Parts: sequence; structure tokens; C-alpha cells
Amino acid sequence: MSHTSPLRIGLLAAGALAAFAVPAFAQEATEAAAAPEFATAAETAFIFNTLLFLIGGFLVMWMAAGFAMLEAGLVRSKNVSMQCLKNIALYSIAGLMFWIIGYSLMYTNVNGGYFGTPMPYSWPDAGSANEGDYSVASDWFFQMVFCATTASIVSGTLAERIKLWPFLIFTAILTGVLYPITGSWQWGAGWLSEAGFSDFAGSTLVHSVGGWAALAGAIILGARKGKYGADGKVTPMPGSSMALATLGTFILWLGWFGFNGASQLALGSNGDASDISRIFANTNLAACGGVVAAMILTQIMYKKVDVTMALNGALAGLVSITAEPLMPSPLTAIIIGAVGGVIVVFAVPMLDKFKIDDVVGAIPVHLLAGIWGTFIVPFSNPDMSYGTQILGIVSIGVFTFVVSGVIWLILKSTVGIRATEEQEMMGMDMAEVGVEAYPEFTKG
Amino acid sequence: MSHTSPLRIGLLAAGALAAFAVPAFAQEATEAAAAPEFATAAETAFIFNTLLFLIGGFLVMWMAAGFAMLEAGLVRSKNVSMQCLKNIALYSIAGLMFWIIGYSLMYTNVNGGYFGTPMPYSWPDAGSANEGDYSVASDWFFQMVFCATTASIVSGTLAERIKLWPFLIFTAILTGVLYPITGSWQWGAGWLSEAGFSDFAGSTLVHSVGGWAALAGAIILGARKGKYGADGKVTPMPGSSMALATLGTFILWLGWFGFNGASQLALGSNGDASDISRIFANTNLAACGGVVAAMILTQIMYKKVDVTMALNGALAGLVSITAEPLMPSPLTAIIIGAVGGVIVVFAVPMLDKFKIDDVVGAIPVHLLAGIWGTFIVPFSNPDMSYGTQILGIVSIGVFTFVVSGVIWLILKSTVGIRATEEQEMMGMDMAEVGVEAYPEFTKG
Amino acid sequence: MSHTSPLRIGLLAAGALAAFAVPAFAQEATEAAAAPEFATAAETAFIFNTLLFLIGGFLVMWMAAGFAMLEAGLVRSKNVSMQCLKNIALYSIAGLMFWIIGYSLMYTNVNGGYFGTPMPYSWPDAGSANEGDYSVASDWFFQMVFCATTASIVSGTLAERIKLWPFLIFTAILTGVLYPITGSWQWGAGWLSEAGFSDFAGSTLVHSVGGWAALAGAIILGARKGKYGADGKVTPMPGSSMALATLGTFILWLGWFGFNGASQLALGSNGDASDISRIFANTNLAACGGVVAAMILTQIMYKKVDVTMALNGALAGLVSITAEPLMPSPLTAIIIGAVGGVIVVFAVPMLDKFKIDDVVGAIPVHLLAGIWGTFIVPFSNPDMSYGTQILGIVSIGVFTFVVSGVIWLILKSTVGIRATEEQEMMGMDMAEVGVEAYPEFTKG
Repeated sequence: MSHTSPLRIGLLAAGALAAFAVPAFAQEATEAAAAPEFATAAETAFIFNTLLFLIGGFLVMWMAAGFAMLEAGLVRSKNVSMQCLKNIALYSIAGLMFWIIGYSLMYTNVNGGYFGTPMPYSWPDAGSANEGDYSVASDWFFQMVFCATTASIVSGTLAERIKLWPFLIFTAILTGVLYPITGSWQWGAGWLSEAGFSDFAGSTLVHSVGGWAALAGAIILGARKGKYGADGKVTPMPGSSMALATLGTFILWLGWFGFNGASQLALGSNGDASDISRIFANTNLAACGGVVAAMILTQIMYKKVDVTMALNGALAGLVSITAEPLMPSPLTAIIIGAVGGVIVVFAVPMLDKFKIDDVVGAIPVHLLAGIWGTFIVPFSNPDMSYGTQILGIVSIGVFTFVVSGVIWLILKSTVGIRATEEQEMMGMDMAEVGVEAYPEFTKG
Repeated sequence: MSHTSPLRIGLLAAGALAAFAVPAFAQEATEAAAAPEFATAAETAFIFNTLLFLIGGFLVMWMAAGFAMLEAGLVRSKNVSMQCLKNIALYSIAGLMFWIIGYSLMYTNVNGGYFGTPMPYSWPDAGSANEGDYSVASDWFFQMVFCATTASIVSGTLAERIKLWPFLIFTAILTGVLYPITGSWQWGAGWLSEAGFSDFAGSTLVHSVGGWAALAGAIILGARKGKYGADGKVTPMPGSSMALATLGTFILWLGWFGFNGASQLALGSNGDASDISRIFANTNLAACGGVVAAMILTQIMYKKVDVTMALNGALAGLVSITAEPLMPSPLTAIIIGAVGGVIVVFAVPMLDKFKIDDVVGAIPVHLLAGIWGTFIVPFSNPDMSYGTQILGIVSIGVFTFVVSGVIWLILKSTVGIRATEEQEMMGMDMAEVGVEAYPEFTKG
Repeated sequence: MSHTSPLRIGLLAAGALAAFAVPAFAQEATEAAAAPEFATAAETAFIFNTLLFLIGGFLVMWMAAGFAMLEAGLVRSKNVSMQCLKNIALYSIAGLMFWIIGYSLMYTNVNGGYFGTPMPYSWPDAGSANEGDYSVASDWFFQMVFCATTASIVSGTLAERIKLWPFLIFTAILTGVLYPITGSWQWGAGWLSEAGFSDFAGSTLVHSVGGWAALAGAIILGARKGKYGADGKVTPMPGSSMALATLGTFILWLGWFGFNGASQLALGSNGDASDISRIFANTNLAACGGVVAAMILTQIMYKKVDVTMALNGALAGLVSITAEPLMPSPLTAIIIGAVGGVIVVFAVPMLDKFKIDDVVGAIPVHLLAGIWGTFIVPFSNPDMSYGTQILGIVSIGVFTFVVSGVIWLILKSTVGIRATEEQEMMGMDMAEVGVEAYPEFTKG
């Protein structure tokens, strides 16, 4: 098909088909006449559901840009090119790996078990009408961007000292194997789903998984040179651009409407459309709660409002509501998000106390707020149990943390994961990218 | 529901229900058989209308990022963190306030009067199918982002010298009370709507309201230190990043398709879809007209093309067409937008003559072009009258300007609204945010 | 219509109409009863198709911001304001020109010929339901943003030394005349379409056309002062912001889902929705392939991974798949995109060898990858022939290159196209825009 505007053929053909089909049935009795009507309604639902995956998918894809900008803004200027490169690379690698083995490992033949059948995924030929409730390629696209999001989370924590290729090797394993395995437990209809765990859009399956992988990496990689003094003094290393960090946060916020809203997985009925609307509203309210809580708290604690805390408050609010964005009342959504914001404000200095160097605050935002959001689901959704939520949080956490740790250790002892001290001083841009981010700007 | 891809249940259930329902009816006479058909068409329209609110809503939400980037680009680097913080804070506060009292104050029980019943808004429970033509939660979301836009407009004008918290208090009142009251007059089916006023997507209700509140604030707050010399000399204070200002403008332009297009409020019919398409085309043409007019005019007047004028020309074109983006012919849309661009080029120096210090040009763009766009509606839409348009412009203007002024005066005489001279010199980032926007970059 | 939420009238009227219509028909025989059912399905398809154009349209419009950010990031800071200005100006001029003559020249009465009838385009009045398969205004909007994309491509190549107004005159001719003429050959159902050429979303019609116009301009305009030494030495002139270049690339990637996906031109059937989904997936896979190929290749060749190569690899992958995003298998899509990435890595230094100064790499990305993608169509789509693909590539290439060259030469010999040496040294921002992009930042 082409842009041949006045001479559209494909659609006309479809219309003509329908036109011919109807009189054919109309010759028969009333019962028969009803059949195409249902067919039509089903086709409409198919299109709506597919459209939801496509719109949700491109919104979540856009979150990759959000992470890139957030991290580019929160690292120092000598590491900005590297952070940009890592973000576009990890999105690309996730896209390939999730096609090569990830999707099938997560969704095919899990049957209440622990993982599916790893193999390249395929979808129906062009021009063939899919059966079922939605186009399977649209579902693949939507699930793929979730997988990529998980990898994005890791990137920020380990910034400014990790080597490029080892990070990308880890990314390939995370997106091709680790994320799909724990994903299969729940969204692939595996054992955890049968146990009654609930995680609507992935507070645990996406955000905490990314956070656990990042935490394991941060511990094994170690802090940036000079970040923590022997005397326990923490040296601030301010990010290069609050404007870009803010842009990144707004991009993520926007993308989250796709992340949570399209996780309804259907738009083809009045009830689904209403639920998605409620999810949009609750998602936004939770983020608002996170921002305001973080702002008030930092004003009280530090007498100033740290803009990075407000940004991370928004993200923490969003992560918190992700496990259950549908059932809470508006007020509950605000409170869930606000608690997320509070968690961030307290957790950032706490991590420093443990000398865990998380450059962008991804562990508080994605891991801790993810745990909080997942844990609190039964408060809004009485069909769920706190015990099962804890089971899910712990099992996925232990698996991801341990296996990630082993992979990081193997990478460390083989190819090495850490830049040399000279490279770190010079910045990763000069060391490994060869292109400075702002060659005309920095003071030098 | 979850990401359980191969085992979608909700939708199947809906389909099954329909399948069972149809034979049941089919047993009866032809009249009865027609009933589910209509039900199906109505449900389809419900979904389309709701989807329009959701897509339009996330596009307008994205405008919050546009304002943030535009303003971050147009203030000096020492105030960029503050401007970023203010923008994410105001969007959050607007979201909360519009839920707590704003929406109901604007839409509930206005009945031709002057305001509705202020109370927290609620929407149907999760899982319940909404009645009516669209999901009420989607409508809430869509109206909320309009409310937030109004607050965004104020932020830019008052930049670089206003204190954070008093600004946020004003924001809470504006978004919770002021905007909803004047909004109720028209969109809440209040007295102005009954008088026959017309403002399709809010040239006056959103843009001028924001502009009036900004103007009152600018007068009471006073100009930035050093902006206007005793001899009438105007000192330019160039913005820190034209790239970010351009990005912000493109974001706003994109968001405006949601702003104007989804203000059609329905997508569920051939006619509505056609009208929205026309609105998209006219909105774009008006913005193009604004850009080209502002460029040609500045080339003639100043022998150079000021990029900020081109950007503000685009925005003025967009504001101008917002009161009536549907009825104008393409050529009329271009001219309406071009006049908006001309207004901006002349109004920016005029404001300086009055020593009204509008950091980003929001008053020319949103207030003046908003008045122009609202006034000219009857030219395209003969059902409307110039007299009634003036009535709406003046009544909303007087109310917003006076009440905003009173609030600003109260804030000034209680908590104070202006940073100290030292704080202003040092920049709001150091003074109140504690995080510099570009710590490695500025000359010092 | 207005935001009057609780009192929506238009839609109710439509619903009521349907309600009345159905019983009227229901009085008659079964055949008659079938009629409104088909009407309903057709209206649903109309809305879906129109919605596809609107969503696709705003995504492609967003690409204008992508080009602006990509180019702002890849030029030196002294030319950033100019690049921003040129990008918003060219989008605006394209929007106007495509309305004034472009659309009709491309689509009206081409009838297998070489161009249509140039005249201002008009669409049905507001409030009237369009006939046909989609709203014609939505189609205009969608085709207009494609036209603007073509102009965006030229802007980057010629950066840092071309004068503003001659560039804009060329833009007006390109978008009003050149692009529509070659576009009419194929998408306007002209001679090339009848010859059996295939270019789904415009690898040739958009990207190569932009690339040929840029190449002609680059040759006639000459390289930037100091770029190529007499001894063949190439002086790198690194861009001002890798963060903005990365942002621009992500924006383009996002927009490409609209570019390729909505080029299906219909969403109103199960089959169309499935095909669009496949296009989304393939488009993404091709971009991923381009990134990874470019990264591995630069690592091998230069021992470092040039971030600009990774970004251009993504774009080259996207351009490569654009001629046929539907038919390839996933693996084929990855390979097509990867070859695009390889082309970029080799072509960038090759152009330098010929002393063709392409500031942002638009010629490798859009022209060469565009040729590659168009040529390889028959590999995935056996109905097409390599010979006809070459015919299309060559005929459009020769026409655009020659006519563009003539226009550039005329502009050069009349108004002049090149800034003076002093202006080039000082930067175009000071020379012609009068507003520096980063007044507080740069070292100089």
C-alpha cells in the first residue's frame, strides 16, 4: 500500500467484502443475520485492543528517551555522551534480545511453571488478519518496550564508572533471560500468577527487577572515586543539567500513561475504556502526590526544595501506583504516591550511609517504591493477600539480585566491569566514546 | 488484569456475553434484533470519545513539559533549576487541586450561574461500565490538564524574582478556585454560556485567564533588578538556551493538537472525526502563519530574525486559533494566526515601555493573542456576536485580574512574594532550590 | 462546541439519529435491516482511518522537533539559534506551501502523469460528515507533515554557512513544487506508480528526495571554512551537545512509528490493524539493527564507539526499512536496518574524501540508506522488481538533484546563498539571528 490518497483500494475492498457478505446472510433467517453483526463488533474490539497496544507501546518506547535525558542531566558533563550512548544501545539490545529469545521465554508454554520456551518470536504474515482479541505483533511491541524499561533503570545507577561493553553484555542477559524468567512467573501465567500474586503494570516485575539488578551491580562495581571519604564524608557530585533531568522526568511521566493505561490490555469495551481512564487519573494523582510530598519534606528537612528530589518524587509516585493503578480511590492513589515520595527523600541519604553509589537515585525510585507499591496492593484490592504480595516481592527479588550478582561477578573476573582510575577522572566520554558531550562549554 | 498475554479473559468474556446475547434476541422479532446493534454502535462511540479524551489529555499534559523547557530556555542559567521545579510543582498542585475542589466547582450544578459545588470529585468504581457518552474519569483527566496549562502560563512571566512557596500558594488558588469559577461560566454551562459566548478550546478561558493572573502578578511583583534603567533604558537579559526554548515551543505545538482537537469532545461519529481533522489542519496553519508573520516583521523592523519572536509567533498563532479552530477556512486560519504573530512582535516592546517585566513573553502570547482570537470568532462563525465575545473577554478579564491582584497583594503583605536583592543577584537556584542547573558550565 | 461536559449535545444527537433510524428500517424486511448495520461498520472504519492519520500525523509533526534537536546538538554553539530558527521556519513554510499548491500538485488529477493541478486545497465545511473512507482534512494533515520532513533533511547538511532567507526560499520551492512533483509520480498515482514502483512510506520519496536536494546544495554551497585543509586534512568540528543530538534521535525514532505505521493508510479492519502492528515491530527492529551494527563497526574500526555513529545508525536503520516495513520477516528487518547502519559508518568518511561537507550526516542517513531501502524491497516483496525500483530511484534522484541544483545556482547568482567569511567565523547566530543560543556558557 502507498500514500496514494484518492485511490485507496485496500479499505474499499474490505468494505466491499462486508457489503457483499451482508446480503448473503440477509437472505437467510434472523439468526443468521445476527452473525455478521457480532463479527463486526469483535473486529472493532480487535482494532481497539491493538490500537491500545500501539499507542501504549510508543508511549513506553518514549520512556527510553526519558531515561536518557534524566541520566544525561544527572551525570557530570564528562560522562554525558556515554550515558546517551548507553541508553540508545540498551534500548536497541533489548529490542533484539526480546525478539530472539525473551518474548517466548516469557510467554510461550509457561503453564504455571518457571519459564517458557526460548526461541525467536514470529507473528502472522503481512496481509493476513490475525485471530484472537488483538494483533500479536502489537502485543510483542508493547511487551518489548517494558523489557527495555527494565534495562534503562540499571543504566543510571552504574553511571560514570562502568565500562561500556560489559554493561551491554549484562543488558543483553537481563533483557533476553532474567527479565523474561521472572516475568513468566507472573505475566506468562507461571507459578506466581497461580499463587495469586498481583502486579498490574510492573512495580515489581519491571521496576524492582531493574532496581535489584542495579543494586547488585552497584555493590560489586563500587562507588565512584572520591564519592565517599574515609571519614564517612559524602562528596556531592552534582549533575550537569537540571533542565535535561526535568525533561526526562516529564517524558517518563507522559510515557507512564501508556505504561499503566495500556496494561489494561484491552480497550474494546465500555468497561475497559472506563478502567483505563481511571488508571490515567490515578497514575497522575499518585505522581502529583509524590512531588508534593517530596517537596514539603525537603523544605522541612533541608530548608530548601531540592529539584532532584521533586523529580524523583514524581517518579517514585509513578512507580508506587504501578502495581495497582485501577482499584485505588483518588485519595488512596494520592497517598500511595506520596508515600513513594517520602521513601525517596529518606532512602537517598540512607544509601549513601551504606556507601552504595546510585548516581541518579534509581534504587530508591524503582526498587524501594516498587516494593512499596506492590506490597500495598491488597489495601485497594481486597481480593489480594499481603502474604502473596510478599512472596512475589521476595522471590523475584532474591532471584534477580542473586543471579544478577553472579553475572556481575563473572563479568568482573573476566572482561572487567570498571573503568580505570584515569579513565574515570578523564570521564567516560573521552575514555570510551571519543566524543565529548559539550566540547565548547565545560570549564576544563 | 495483568500482562498475561495468551490468556486474556476479560475481553473474551465480553465477547462471549455479546455472543450469547445476540441469539437470545434473535429468537424474537426483527425490532428486538435491532436493539443490540444500536447498543454496539453506542459502545463504539463511547470508546472513541473516551479515547479522544485520553489522547488529547496526554498531549496537553505534555504541554507542561513544553512550558518547562520554554521557560528553562528563556531564563538565565542561575534560575533554571527554579523554573524547572516550579513547573513540575505547579502541574502537580493543579492536578491535586482540580480533584479536591476544582472540577466540581467548575462543572457540578452550575445551572446557568456563577460557580458549581466545590467538593472532591469521584468517578465510578473500577470494573464498572460507565453510562453516558464517555468515561467521566477521562473527562476529568482532560479538563485537569487544561487547568494545569493555565497555571503554567503564570510561571514564565514572574520568573527570576518570585519566591517559590508564595507562587505555589497562588497556583493552588488559581487552579482550585479562580480558573474553575470563570470556567464554570462557560464550559460549566453558566451564565456566560447562556449569554451566547463562544470559546471553543480556551483562548480566553485558559490562555487569557493565565495571562491576566500573570499580568496582575507582574505589576505587583515589579520588574527584575536592573531590567529597566531610570532613563528608560531596557537591559536585555538573554535566556540561557535557545535550544530548550525551541524544544519547548515544539512540545507546545504538538500538545496543541490535543488541546484544540480533543476539545471537539467527541470522536464517535464520522462528523466529529472530520471536524477534528479540520481542527488539526487549521491549528497547524494558524501556527505557521504566526511564525512566518513574526519572522518577516522582525526582519523588516530589526534587520534580523529574532528566534524568540519566531517561537512566540508560533505560540501566538496557536493561542489565536484556539477560540475557534473549527469554522475558519484554511486561509482565514492562516490570517488569524498571522495577526497573532504580529501582535507579539509589537506587544513585547510595548510591555517594556510600561516597565512590565514579562520574562518569557507570556502576556503578549497568551493574554493578547487570546483576546484577539476570542474577539474574532464571529468572523468565522456567524452565529456568534462580537458584543457577546467582548462581554466574555471583559467579564473574565476583570474578574481574573482583580481577584488575582487581591491575592497577590495579600501574599505580598503577609508571606512576601519577592526574593531579596541578594537572592535575585545570586539566582533563585542557589537561594531557594539549592541545586544549580548547570554547575559545570557557567562562566562564574 | 465547548468543554461543556455534562451537557454534550452533538453526540447525543448522533446517537438519537441512529436510534430513530433503526426502528424505521426495522419495520421492513430483513434485507433492509442489514443496511444500517453496514453503515455503522463503515462509519467505524472511517473514524479509525481518520484517527490513524491524526495520530500518525502528530507523531510525524513531532519529527520536526527531532530534526531541530538533532541539528542543534550537532552544530557548534555559535550556530544553534540559527538551526532552531531554520527548523521551526521550514516546518511553517512547508505547512503553508503544501496547502497553497503542494497537495493538489501531488494528488489532484495526476492520472498516471507527471504532476497534478496546483491550487489551494480545500476540505469540507465544519459540521459536514465527509464521505469516503477517511476525513480528507486528516489526510491533508498527514501528507503535509511528510512534506515538511523532506525539508528538515536539507537543513542539517547545509548548516553553519548558509544564509537564512535563501535557504527558506529553497524550502518553499522544495515543499511547494519539487517534493509534490516526484511525490505525484508515485503516491499521486502517476507514471511511476503505474510502472510498478514501490516505496511504502518514502525511503525515496521523502528521505532520498531530501538527501538529493541537500547534496546538490552542499556541492554548490561548498564546505565550511577550515573543514578541509589543502593537504586533505579533515578538521573535526564537534557538535555542541550530544544530549540534544540523542534527544533528537529518540524523537525521530518515536515519530517514525507514525511515519511508517500510519502509511498503511487504514486502521479500519482487523487486517490493517495487524499490518500496522507488524510495521511497528519491524520498524523498531530495523532501527535496533542499525544501532548495533554501527556500534560494533566503529568499535572495530576506531576502538571507540562514536555516539554520533550510533545515533545515525538508528536513523539509517529507520530510513532503510521505510520503503517496505510490512513484508520483511523480523530477521530480514534487522538485517536491512543493520546494513543501513553499516552504510553510514562507511559513507561519512567517504563524503569527507570528496570534500562534501554534510554537517549532520544527513546524506548518508537519508539519501544512501534511502536508496538501499528502496532497492531491497523486492527481496521481501516478490511482487516488485529490482529494475523498477532502480527506475524509481534514478528518475526521482536525477530530477531532484538536477532541479535542486539549478535552483541553488540561481539563488547563488542572485541573492547569494553563502554567509561571508566573517559571518561564518562569528557564527550565524550573531550574524543573522541576533540571539546567541547559550550566551552565558561558551568559552570564547
